[in-house]
Amino acid sequence: MKVRIHVFLKPGVLDVQGKAVEGALKGLGWSGVANARVGKLIEFDLDGAEDPAAEAKKMCETLLANTVIESYRIEVG
Amino acid sequence: MKVRIHVFLKPGVLDVQGKAVEGALKGLGWSGVANARVGKLIEFDLDGAEDPAAEAKKMCETLLANTVIESYRIEVG
Repeated sequence: MKVRIHVFLKPGVLDVQGKAVEGALKGLGWSGVANARVGKLIEFDLDGAEDPAAEAKKMCETLLANTVIESYRIEVG
Repeated sequence: MKVRIHVFLKPGVLDVQGKAVEGALKGLGWSGVANARVGKLIEFDLDGAEDPAAEAKKMCETLLANTVIESYRIEVG
């Protein structure tokens, strides 16, 4: 079972990497770029789990995301 | 127009971050985890582009991905 986890900084938390990307793209002429955010994407295969989504949620809470400043989204399948 | 770009190391390129995640998850008891990969996810709004997918491809080639070792996938909408 393929699990895909998207981790982003929560809205309101300053995303310096996103700001850098936005500034660089604007500098290259793409003036229509706005609200750039850079996050992490973690993909793995998970075998032997009865409820992969629940297991993935536990993984995020314990290891993969810092839930104080980051939010996550889980896709299974 | 919302643009979402997924950047991953190409298969065959050692993904140390992915190995670290896999090792940590196994250490926490999730022994069924395999083939973990960690990539980047870049999201932004793009206004004023006639063909946002083509513009996003150009952005990847010039700035957002190192195409020697990284592959990317673009989602528009």
